[in-house]
Amino acid sequence: MKAILIIADGLGGRPTDYNGKTCLKAAKTPYLDDLAARGAVGLMDPIGPGIRPGSDTAHLSILGQNPYKVYTGRGVFEALGVGMEMAPGDVGFRANFAAVELVSRGLRVLDRRAGRISEGQKELEAVINSIELSEALDIDFEFRASTQHRGALILRGNGLCHCVGGTDPKQAGTLVCTSRPTEEGDIDAQRTAAALNELTKKSYEVLCNHPLNRRRVEEGKSPANILLCRGAADLPSLQSIESVYGVRGAVIALGSLYRGIGKSLGMKPITAAGDASSLDEDPAAIAEMSLAALSEYDYLFVHIKGPDNAGHDQDAAAKIAVIERIDRELIAYLDLQLDWRTTHLAFTGDHTTPIDYGDHTAEPVPIIFVGPNVLPDKVKEFNERAATEGGLGRFSGQALPILFNYNNWLPKFGS
Amino acid sequence: MKAILIIADGLGGRPTDYNGKTCLKAAKTPYLDDLAARGAVGLMDPIGPGIRPGSDTAHLSILGQNPYKVYTGRGVFEALGVGMEMAPGDVGFRANFAAVELVSRGLRVLDRRAGRISEGQKELEAVINSIELSEALDIDFEFRASTQHRGALILRGNGLCHCVGGTDPKQAGTLVCTSRPTEEGDIDAQRTAAALNELTKKSYEVLCNHPLNRRRVEEGKSPANILLCRGAADLPSLQSIESVYGVRGAVIALGSLYRGIGKSLGMKPITAAGDASSLDEDPAAIAEMSLAALSEYDYLFVHIKGPDNAGHDQDAAAKIAVIERIDRELIAYLDLQLDWRTTHLAFTGDHTTPIDYGDHTAEPVPIIFVGPNVLPDKVKEFNERAATEGGLGRFSGQALPILFNYNNWLPKFGS
Repeated sequence: MKAILIIADGLGGRPTDYNGKTCLKAAKTPYLDDLAARGAVGLMDPIGPGIRPGSDTAHLSILGQNPYKVYTGRGVFEALGVGMEMAPGDVGFRANFAAVELVSRGLRVLDRRAGRISEGQKELEAVINSIELSEALDIDFEFRASTQHRGALILRGNGLCHCVGGTDPKQAGTLVCTSRPTEEGDIDAQRTAAALNELTKKSYEVLCNHPLNRRRVEEGKSPANILLCRGAADLPSLQSIESVYGVRGAVIALGSLYRGIGKSLGMKPITAAGDASSLDEDPAAIAEMSLAALSEYDYLFVHIKGPDNAGHDQDAAAKIAVIERIDRELIAYLDLQLDWRTTHLAFTGDHTTPIDYGDHTAEPVPIIFVGPNVLPDKVKEFNERAATEGGLGRFSGQALPILFNYNNWLPKFGS
Repeated sequence: MKAILIIADGLGGRPTDYNGKTCLKAAKTPYLDDLAARGAVGLMDPIGPGIRPGSDTAHLSILGQNPYKVYTGRGVFEALGVGMEMAPGDVGFRANFAAVELVSRGLRVLDRRAGRISEGQKELEAVINSIELSEALDIDFEFRASTQHRGALILRGNGLCHCVGGTDPKQAGTLVCTSRPTEEGDIDAQRTAAALNELTKKSYEVLCNHPLNRRRVEEGKSPANILLCRGAADLPSLQSIESVYGVRGAVIALGSLYRGIGKSLGMKPITAAGDASSLDEDPAAIAEMSLAALSEYDYLFVHIKGPDNAGHDQDAAAKIAVIERIDRELIAYLDLQLDWRTTHLAFTGDHTTPIDYGDHTAEPVPIIFVGPNVLPDKVKEFNERAATEGGLGRFSGQALPILFNYNNWLPKFGS
């Protein structure tokens, strides 16, 4: 038996999206509709009713974890996702190259993405990694640049703690933040924040006059003259999917966060086809990659960022177009190529990203399960409204275990 | 007011059961359909979505408990169910007479059920109970034979622990297991495992040359020459139903496990009519027993093992037949005889047992509630597919409190 879970990030919408319809309803999706007609449909609250999910917490919940128990921050998944290794006690951060200027009150952020820098990041990575922190701190670090301005940072040493704020103010025009413990008097968090603040200051010192940045300024581009960090997190003690269910799987994703989440659960990370800089996937190529990976692994988790990007951009036409492309290039191919006698498939989103709001909201998202052991319901199309009449009703997260159940892969609780 | 909860074990099925239908859908169940038409139908996850239940954990959840908090193992319910008394600190086991042979590496299991021994078990019980464990252990035990090869064992003494593996390898042809603590260094579990291992060894010594077994071998039957144990458990601290809801009830079941679960919640255990050896109930007789018990108790929990037995046997025709027999003999009688002005009834399964797989799976099961305070929905038949359109939606366990609510028996949480 094989299983494949496909998550279209930010898939869900609102009637304000497009002429009274959600983007998913407005999109023509004949192949998803066909899966809906053959399978069972439901409404899934990514984490729970009335809980507005992040992409990381939603994925943990959908993959069978309790994010309230295991989630400390995004940084650990970013670090794993860019190929770094984390050990218990390390603290990981999402890191950005950014452009700042020195003003009287501190460092003011000009561009949080350093003009989406597209070359020389590995050179700047080496410069960052050559920084020496005060010996008194006794803390090591490792920085890894990934795509454009993006990267991840790991602090290593005894007595570190993830309970610290970041240095990224998350808004241009404001000052770089001083990292502080989230609770006063936490000695480990004080050391961690001190290390992060020192590294941030020194990153500006080594980058501000770097030849690459001087050249960028001459060319009228934003310099990448500081490293800003957020999402402090330590390694959650997750049981691997293989140890719980006895099956081996892979994650196919272009976004490092999603590869990192899969890797934290023991999945083999595979970088999806597409433009990694803009997280613009190539669904047709991903379809072929998925089929190839399914011959090697028991199950796959395939992540597509496209719909969420369009939602954050508040671009309904783009969201409709990317949903239609997923349907036409990924779903149609899998429908044709999968062996439906031995495969179960689930398709859903990780949350709603309405056009009007341009950020995540808490509505439940539609989900399909299809395969030989799924009892079909009466629903014959796939969208938020049709899913309200689905045979699976409404439930919270746990899509991967529910999918695995159809493959008879679940361990029994009790006897 | 009276309440009756009927659980048909393993009732749920899959479209692979029988010509694209579940066994429940394929079965003709006019009386259940009539209850559905008069009442409200829903889908119940026995424990939760994506959780594959055992019979014990499912029943605890359906009866209003949280199995993650109260469940340690099956043994305690088996012991209570065969009429033994357990005190806090005791450790209970499900026990089997089995046939083994001495080989160079240990004792190899020939037949885990000792040829489903049907006579002389009380004689062998006395032999087991005459075993003396090493004084140094300072641990007492009590064994009780029940039906065929089945029985229960209780260890009693200070400093015992249920965190031990069993001695039953659960597969013929393999060696009898040595019980070990599930976590290394657990002193109490080490003592418990040592006592179980010594008892297992001595059970072989006293049984292997017992005249009854010599006679069985001469007659070409499997000897009952060892006691194998599994499901170590301690007594959960459950509040009785009567203390929480102020009502008195009884459990009618042929399987000792289910009587034990009911007894652990303060229900009066009543052995159901039927062939206890094969757990083959007589639904017509159970119908009369139920009506008689309802005159004495406020509520009843009636358990029927038949559908699950057929599911484990992967026999669709048998499962359909037993469901039809439950409908015709039990439901039809109750429908006629109950006073529907003052009675609420719930009917459901404790989990799905698909024919194709022959073991429990995690799908939600259909459930009906009927009686004067139940708001009828549009559903007019009782099966997995119809239940997806039921007025009660999808919920997890707690069928007994939901039933009690219609009788206005629930304590108020808050004011």
